[in-house]
Amino acid sequence: MKNKISIDPAVKELLPIAKKNKISTVWDRYEVMQPQCGFGSLGLCCRICWKGPCRIDPFGGGPDRGICGADAHTIVARNLIRMMAAGAAAHSEHGRHVVLALWGVSRGRFSAYGIRDEKKLLSVAQKLDIETENRDTLKIAEEVALKTLEDFQNQDHQTACHWIKTVVTDNHFNKLKDLHVLPHNIDAVVCQIMGRTHVGCDAEPANVVLGGVKGALADLNGMVLATELSDILFGTPSPVVTSANLGVIKENAVNIAINGHNPLLSEVICSIAGEMNGDAIDAGAPAGINIIGICCTGNEVMVRHGVPLATNYLSQEMALITGAVDAMVVDVQCIMPSISEIGACFHTEVITTMDENKITGATHVSFSEESAGDTARRILGLAIEAFRRRDAKRVNIPDIKQTAMVGFGVESIVAALAKLDEKDPLKPLIDNIVNGNIQGIALLAGCNNTRSVQDRSFETIAKNLAENNVLLLASGCGAGACAKEGLMTMEATEKYAGESLKAVLTSIGNACGLGGPLPLVLHMGSCVDNSRAVNLATALANKLGVDLSDLPLIASAPEAMSEKAVAIATWSVAIGIPTHVGTIPQVTGSSIVTDLLTEGTRDLFGGYFIVEPDPASAAGKLMDIIRDKRKKLGI
Amino acid sequence: MKNKISIDPAVKELLPIAKKNKISTVWDRYEVMQPQCGFGSLGLCCRICWKGPCRIDPFGGGPDRGICGADAHTIVARNLIRMMAAGAAAHSEHGRHVVLALWGVSRGRFSAYGIRDEKKLLSVAQKLDIETENRDTLKIAEEVALKTLEDFQNQDHQTACHWIKTVVTDNHFNKLKDLHVLPHNIDAVVCQIMGRTHVGCDAEPANVVLGGVKGALADLNGMVLATELSDILFGTPSPVVTSANLGVIKENAVNIAINGHNPLLSEVICSIAGEMNGDAIDAGAPAGINIIGICCTGNEVMVRHGVPLATNYLSQEMALITGAVDAMVVDVQCIMPSISEIGACFHTEVITTMDENKITGATHVSFSEESAGDTARRILGLAIEAFRRRDAKRVNIPDIKQTAMVGFGVESIVAALAKLDEKDPLKPLIDNIVNGNIQGIALLAGCNNTRSVQDRSFETIAKNLAENNVLLLASGCGAGACAKEGLMTMEATEKYAGESLKAVLTSIGNACGLGGPLPLVLHMGSCVDNSRAVNLATALANKLGVDLSDLPLIASAPEAMSEKAVAIATWSVAIGIPTHVGTIPQVTGSSIVTDLLTEGTRDLFGGYFIVEPDPASAAGKLMDIIRDKRKKLGI
Repeated sequence: MKNKISIDPAVKELLPIAKKNKISTVWDRYEVMQPQCGFGSLGLCCRICWKGPCRIDPFGGGPDRGICGADAHTIVARNLIRMMAAGAAAHSEHGRHVVLALWGVSRGRFSAYGIRDEKKLLSVAQKLDIETENRDTLKIAEEVALKTLEDFQNQDHQTACHWIKTVVTDNHFNKLKDLHVLPHNIDAVVCQIMGRTHVGCDAEPANVVLGGVKGALADLNGMVLATELSDILFGTPSPVVTSANLGVIKENAVNIAINGHNPLLSEVICSIAGEMNGDAIDAGAPAGINIIGICCTGNEVMVRHGVPLATNYLSQEMALITGAVDAMVVDVQCIMPSISEIGACFHTEVITTMDENKITGATHVSFSEESAGDTARRILGLAIEAFRRRDAKRVNIPDIKQTAMVGFGVESIVAALAKLDEKDPLKPLIDNIVNGNIQGIALLAGCNNTRSVQDRSFETIAKNLAENNVLLLASGCGAGACAKEGLMTMEATEKYAGESLKAVLTSIGNACGLGGPLPLVLHMGSCVDNSRAVNLATALANKLGVDLSDLPLIASAPEAMSEKAVAIATWSVAIGIPTHVGTIPQVTGSSIVTDLLTEGTRDLFGGYFIVEPDPASAAGKLMDIIRDKRKKLGI
Repeated sequence: MKNKISIDPAVKELLPIAKKNKISTVWDRYEVMQPQCGFGSLGLCCRICWKGPCRIDPFGGGPDRGICGADAHTIVARNLIRMMAAGAAAHSEHGRHVVLALWGVSRGRFSAYGIRDEKKLLSVAQKLDIETENRDTLKIAEEVALKTLEDFQNQDHQTACHWIKTVVTDNHFNKLKDLHVLPHNIDAVVCQIMGRTHVGCDAEPANVVLGGVKGALADLNGMVLATELSDILFGTPSPVVTSANLGVIKENAVNIAINGHNPLLSEVICSIAGEMNGDAIDAGAPAGINIIGICCTGNEVMVRHGVPLATNYLSQEMALITGAVDAMVVDVQCIMPSISEIGACFHTEVITTMDENKITGATHVSFSEESAGDTARRILGLAIEAFRRRDAKRVNIPDIKQTAMVGFGVESIVAALAKLDEKDPLKPLIDNIVNGNIQGIALLAGCNNTRSVQDRSFETIAKNLAENNVLLLASGCGAGACAKEGLMTMEATEKYAGESLKAVLTSIGNACGLGGPLPLVLHMGSCVDNSRAVNLATALANKLGVDLSDLPLIASAPEAMSEKAVAIATWSVAIGIPTHVGTIPQVTGSSIVTDLLTEGTRDLFGGYFIVEPDPASAAGKLMDIIRDKRKKLGI
């Protein structure tokens, strides 16, 4: 059984301890949940009104329509696009939070924050056609914030959101416009999806799905603005060496795990932790305070500040089972509600911080931008108090961690390339794609899912594509998996990269003074930071004068799980990228929706879904696509 | 079986014809769907991520947590508030549509529309603190529109939407503020709900439900603005005598059924129909064009223009089965997707009009405000063409219709009362409540649902409460039910009202020159127009200096079905009204959520849910509440 759960050795080491303590983990709950409902798995269950629940019989003997008359295709399409709406909403809430913080900073409020990257501010302002010359920084920041807020406010359905224009080619922008799928307002588009899927509304499956695509593109818009404005406030990632996996937890430190997605509080915790090191030492922790990251809050501070990553989504409970995490501080998204119960089995203070995201049994410390510093201090204090209660006999920290060189945003990749060609940094990359040294580019993204062996698909696909000389980018829990598996090291490049890819990564690495190659997988950041990969790819497409769908470029979310992943994968398809998912989407109850996603979108957008649970087969299919794209480009 | 389906005699007459034609109706589909999924019915099914579907075992033997760790309470609460979000989104899309039309009109665009009720515009402007004196009408309209749009745009979480202030007492406004449930932006609150219910977010059931309440209050805000601005554009309802039930379909006319909720197109169709009467007569229909309403689009034009109502939600298919509907024109919400197939069994042109609401097999004529007149003409033309194809041998119009005096908005009720006391029109109503001639006020609202015998609960509750001298208001499909059952007549008052209620209704009716009593049930409009009842009740509460929860006031949605109904019932509770639902809400899998809705909300808001499927028992419980409220008021 253990081998079916995870390839993460730390997980394997801790599961027996969970069992001994009678702690149920996500894998136990998965097992108990078997068999899972077939109607839901096929997308054929409708709970949209109180005439229902309705279920379409996939075998044809029972009901072929819901009570209202909706057929399988309508039901599947509605369920799917509500997932996209929820994903877009989650990202948009995160993005809104960041832009409102920037706006506050620009108005001289929120003393815990400031403009940490003025250069990024200027480049963002220019992208948004905001005048920058001879202007006060805060004035520019204010205008960036206000223009960004328009993407949540605009009521003219004919005018697209500002940010989406900055991440797609002009040609593709017009294509999306012609298909009426350009979002004009993130919130309004989410509402539109919820409204059009209400009982008795949109019932034409392709129309429903295209409505969802608009929501997915609103999701992209929200993600881009979240990433770019976060860089302004917290700094743009640059390469940094750190480590990953549960071995980053220190027996002799107050260990504070920050878990979730939104960097607003975790940034302040990281800034302030030093102030309270003395208190931690006084409490008996000679190594002071040790901040460690989990999931995408972890990725945010990892790529910006080199904070070590403890683990990714599926094994967040394992961090608690070490018995050495003194506080787990959570913000939003992908936080297992089980952590409060597991924390209570140990001494761990589980702290929720966002008023819209509480967990029964957790301590709630309400976060606000105004008092972020005080909030962070209070949380650090709670962690130190909890440390005093820690039972040394119950501590089991696996001695497992991997070095990880992370922090490859677009800016740092371009900076590295500039060492080869200062005037035209993208040229070396393009030249190496054209000459075949780099066969293509792949983004490994998305979640973990109990339906897959944790991290295995990422590892398999990464090694397979790397061997075939594909340049690998990663984000979110995909990046976490690669970091934990040691794929973000020079050694991994030496070991797994194909010869020509290795040569390119080595020449860039040497030019940057690393004394060796770039890591095999470039960590771009959290799942919101998928937008970084799009920015890079679009820069290449623009330089070549082609569309994203022409490039030898693929995306893969082999362990996709969340509604955010559904939204992300859909915009990935909609901007032209062949996109692999390793989880069977809950749409197979409708041939129309399934065909539309895997075939129809190819004609409309250039991108399409490839569904393949087996990672080795998936890698093969993705290589075929890359080769085919190269052939069509004549390279 | 027939008696279990509907009390509507027209339905009973047409069902055998449907059967003969092998047409499956909503009742057939309901039967085939039995037994319905118990997990979904209890709210215990979670499809929020692709680790799932998960199901909690209500009997305790199987899973007690979802795979992520969410328990029954979290799952039930999340499912519930997503319904509220969808309801709020549906209404907000409708409201946005109306406000954008008003804005267009104020800017001299949209020639098919204008300011039809300047007096209403002025009173609305005053409510919104907009200067009206010596100002151009269109300028005032523009400002009303822009201020209303702020309710979709405001990003300051501390500032409530403008409209909600106009419909709750100051005291209750402050209560809602203290509970952090005042919406600041309709769209943003819907997004917030979708975001906080994403996997790994809000897991504390009461916190989740309160997040939903904020969404429900956003729904109220959207409904109020939709109603009030519609009155400005299309006229404020005033009493008009018309008729209801399928007998309004004419054998010798081109029958055009308008079905859905949004009045923007149907208003233009009504205005323009006269122009094309000649064409209809030329096509062989001596009675010309006959516009008939279904569901709430029907209610909108019924209360404003006396257009006869063919039927309400559950029997919309029956209109087609008469074989005499030449076109069914639909806009948004509660439109059965089955109508295109049933229309195709006859000669009927089923026409969808909103780009976000299509139906496979229907003809789509895209509506826009700019070309509303042309759209209406094209639709009327299609109906006349279809009429030529009508097969007289297949026509079966039940000779069943009831007179209905409708159109009782707040303004017309106040105008009627002013005949008794010109200076203080609410005084006679209050005096009669205080002296017990009127025991209380009840709003009969909400949908039909196959889980109930169609319309029976409305009829039972209405007759029972009327006998107990309760003043009855109705909206939506509840109003449709009462109209079809002949409860909107003087005769019904004579027959069913208790003596003291009858005396009051008669004195008002006589004062108004009706030569008899007001109807037993006052038709306030569509389901969006539930806001009218709130406006009336709040005016009474303000005059008495009490809160809504102090008044002998109840609401009942005995056949609640849609997500809009979930949102409406929830805001009804949140503004202090004891609210009956006759459909078991899909929350009983969680004792915490169930207790919160039926008990906890009483302490928080003054309102609470009463769940009682049996209409006679429900009426008894509602009378008990009214008597209890009276007792507490010392009257």
